[in-house]
Amino acid sequence: MVTARQIRLAARPAGLPLDQDFTLHEVVLPDLAEGQFIVAVEHVSVDPAMRTWISGEETYRAPVEPGDLIPALAVGRVARSRHPGFPVGAAVRGGFGVQDLAISDGAGVDLLAPGAAPVEHLGLLGISGLSAYVGLFEIGRAAAGETVLISGAAGAVGGAVGQLAKIQGCRVIGVAGGAAKRAYLVDELGFDAALDYRAPSFAADVRSACPGGADVVFDNVGGGFLEAALDNLALQARIVICGGLSQYNSDQRWGPPNYLNLVVRRASMAGFLVHDHARLFPEALARLASWRAEGRLRGDLHIIDGLASFPGALRGLFEGVNTGKLVLAVGPCSQEFQ
Amino acid sequence: MVTARQIRLAARPAGLPLDQDFTLHEVVLPDLAEGQFIVAVEHVSVDPAMRTWISGEETYRAPVEPGDLIPALAVGRVARSRHPGFPVGAAVRGGFGVQDLAISDGAGVDLLAPGAAPVEHLGLLGISGLSAYVGLFEIGRAAAGETVLISGAAGAVGGAVGQLAKIQGCRVIGVAGGAAKRAYLVDELGFDAALDYRAPSFAADVRSACPGGADVVFDNVGGGFLEAALDNLALQARIVICGGLSQYNSDQRWGPPNYLNLVVRRASMAGFLVHDHARLFPEALARLASWRAEGRLRGDLHIIDGLASFPGALRGLFEGVNTGKLVLAVGPCSQEFQ
Repeated sequence: MVTARQIRLAARPAGLPLDQDFTLHEVVLPDLAEGQFIVAVEHVSVDPAMRTWISGEETYRAPVEPGDLIPALAVGRVARSRHPGFPVGAAVRGGFGVQDLAISDGAGVDLLAPGAAPVEHLGLLGISGLSAYVGLFEIGRAAAGETVLISGAAGAVGGAVGQLAKIQGCRVIGVAGGAAKRAYLVDELGFDAALDYRAPSFAADVRSACPGGADVVFDNVGGGFLEAALDNLALQARIVICGGLSQYNSDQRWGPPNYLNLVVRRASMAGFLVHDHARLFPEALARLASWRAEGRLRGDLHIIDGLASFPGALRGLFEGVNTGKLVLAVGPCSQEFQ
Repeated sequence: MVTARQIRLAARPAGLPLDQDFTLHEVVLPDLAEGQFIVAVEHVSVDPAMRTWISGEETYRAPVEPGDLIPALAVGRVARSRHPGFPVGAAVRGGFGVQDLAISDGAGVDLLAPGAAPVEHLGLLGISGLSAYVGLFEIGRAAAGETVLISGAAGAVGGAVGQLAKIQGCRVIGVAGGAAKRAYLVDELGFDAALDYRAPSFAADVRSACPGGADVVFDNVGGGFLEAALDNLALQARIVICGGLSQYNSDQRWGPPNYLNLVVRRASMAGFLVHDHARLFPEALARLASWRAEGRLRGDLHIIDGLASFPGALRGLFEGVNTGKLVLAVGPCSQEFQ
């Protein structure tokens, strides 16, 4: 008998997610049918979008209901298999959810090539890197010599966006919270400048850092950042909306009060979902891996240990705890498989 | 001695422009230099954007200062000339301002072809028609079979957008204020449906009218319209921001609180200024004139009489007084020219 531990939604959070909004369940897995396999999950991706999935609002996927397993992208290894395409020991990535064991029939599951640890395929070589690539190049059309302004810049996507923009020959301004993250952006990731959104002078800082305005704005946050960005657009600027971290826990809905600057500056603001651009993934992943191998691009990870740490890890995203991609280490499965 | 009467800004309006925010001046024109001519202005375009120019805020043109002539596009005839390219009697359009006589050196002045009254070149055959054409086709990329949702639909630009969208084979939903304008849109302009933004059921009405969501949103207004539109976007929708009539007189700045639906629906919101797209004008004007000649496109005018009526005319734009393009008839000049 094999038992999976899983994190389920107990109640919809009001504001920041609390520990009691989630429960840890143990579930006995059914016997494997022909064509199925069990994945021993190693790492689970923790993403801001999860907060919207559990909010009950209509998004691009069905809302998670109380009692449901929290959906998540995860990586692991096949532990038992009745599927010829997924042999025991194979490294895989899929929407396994926040649990330590998952049964799968292979639908939507990727076999991971060797050459990088499976967990890398949750960060730079996964959705984070692809979101940065698609958002910056396909949606934002960033060109050499342009100024790129990025919020959530110390996060997984923002950090990749800034490094990709440097590779492209852009001037890169990152926005993050606190002196440590600012130093990280400039000293570690090679950004041209980094601003602290908590500084009282933030709006003026953006103006100083972008004297000709920003040509591409890559926004993960919304709020004061987006307002300052809209006040500092170059002509024909492209604002790429990847997310709105500052909004997900708020009851009060906020909109950019200076959105009419889109007219004044002949600018655009576009949202995107990376999954719509799957035709670009092979090219993008090859380039990301190649730049990484050359040492021009790095995908830092922030790994929080233990399945039960999930509520705090999710909360931490909104408190700015992470530098790089936040993942949960589910740890070696204690159960034996023959 | 020739005297021009002109409307100048007296004080920056707070909210809706009042009569006392403007003054009527008489100015003796200097003698014509070689290369100059005098235009007897016949019609002056009255546009919502004027409210932003006199607000003192930074827009795409220098703010109008108290004491300045109110800038405006206008049409008239050359009344006296020392410029070989602009003979007496020629019909011209230019940024002559809100005045009955203007001195020009021809810079930025168009000679108007016969075949339409000069005043038509302030409406359908001018900036209104061009804005509709560029916004709908170039920015909005409206395609046959798509649903187009338009605010300010009974105005000059909105009315043209809807008619052009019908010519393109789109389903067209117009939004305007009151039963008379709704009837005008459906019965006169051939829209598929018209909604009243003042109706308590407006948000639900938009949902009913756009069951599959709107593919193109053409917004002249902002506010509740834009919020309802963002709640009813088709996937890959394009929101074209032409203006924000509901915002221009307000102290309280407003932003669309559901802008993150741009991500959920993978949609974009773009501002534009028609003047950036001058390369399209010859083609656009030829098509507009041709469709008009075929009776498939009409450019209604709302003509308010008298230079001194300017403050009320501008106010009327925001009170929804007009159906079609609002212009001021400056009237036959009482002065004689030899």
